[in-house]
Amino acid sequence: MLLYDSAVSGNCYKVRLLLSQLGIDYERAEVDVIDRSNRLSMLGALNPALRQPTIVLDDGEPLGESNAILCYFAEGTPLLPAARLARARTLQWLFFEQYSHEPYIAVPRFWLKFANERPLEDEIEARRRLGYTALEAMERHLHERQYLVEENYTIADIALYAYTHVADEAGFDLSSFTAVREWLARVAAQPGHVPITA
Amino acid sequence: MLLYDSAVSGNCYKVRLLLSQLGIDYERAEVDVIDRSNRLSMLGALNPALRQPTIVLDDGEPLGESNAILCYFAEGTPLLPAARLARARTLQWLFFEQYSHEPYIAVPRFWLKFANERPLEDEIEARRRLGYTALEAMERHLHERQYLVEENYTIADIALYAYTHVADEAGFDLSSFTAVREWLARVAAQPGHVPITA
Repeated sequence: MLLYDSAVSGNCYKVRLLLSQLGIDYERAEVDVIDRSNRLSMLGALNPALRQPTIVLDDGEPLGESNAILCYFAEGTPLLPAARLARARTLQWLFFEQYSHEPYIAVPRFWLKFANERPLEDEIEARRRLGYTALEAMERHLHERQYLVEENYTIADIALYAYTHVADEAGFDLSSFTAVREWLARVAAQPGHVPITA
Repeated sequence: MLLYDSAVSGNCYKVRLLLSQLGIDYERAEVDVIDRSNRLSMLGALNPALRQPTIVLDDGEPLGESNAILCYFAEGTPLLPAARLARARTLQWLFFEQYSHEPYIAVPRFWLKFANERPLEDEIEARRRLGYTALEAMERHLHERQYLVEENYTIADIALYAYTHVADEAGFDLSSFTAVREWLARVAAQPGHVPITA
């Protein structure tokens, strides 16, 4: 199994974290997140979105989108609930992550830490405002809960952990987000946890 | 069952279309997409993202995120494949839709058709460039296929149809996207299809 990976990408980290916790071995091919000139030749036949992570399964079948990869591997384990409503709520958080969270936390982090050029401070600040909106939604939800879905650790927690735990690298201050910080610690204490640098 | 709905939203249309095709009855509450001042009081206890569509099931349980709602209702039907890889590929397209498609087609459409104020033309054009990138990904994929996943009509087609079929309202020209246009016609010919105005 081959993971088209990026060491700095939280989206790729989600997959590395889950595969570690499931004890699944794989190989990695590093995708350049700055020079994207070879994306179509490298990923065109594997993933229409030309994004990493993309995984090629043992039988040669490709699969893209970090959260779809999480669902594929978590299927049949407690990390993706079997009950219909709990499963849908896990997906709800995965879609929340890609639509309302990642663009406003991962993207400023990329600009500040990895990009060759960064946009105007106004644009970074506009993203960050929406990132705080996403963090506030998580704080409200986690205020009286241990995990995002039904009080069990699931791939919803893995997906949201990936960029939330490095939000400081995007200029976010989590000091007032008590429930989020306690949840981050609970996720990091799960068996088989690995850091983003692993 | 109560759907927090918006008549003009493609995300809500996805849910209305699926429920029509499954023959499921529901009531609607219209959510204002311009004046968002009552969002927290209206949706705060139902959906952390405060977005429509949000659905309240017959037993009072709320569920948010359009594509998670699609998965919930399509579960157990041919519209969400049971086989592990086909199911993951359906999710792959749903995540593609929310991350790489909707922000660049739905948002310009909202600005041009419904918003009180619109941003600078440069910003609309920047979104539209990424919208064309999403449409090109679909065109490559549909070039030799009838539907997005395994040659069967699924909720992946419903999700991508929602804003692709009104892309002209966002200033897109689909005339060179032959495979996409033929696919749009196939989706619109499915039994139980309803227009976005239904």
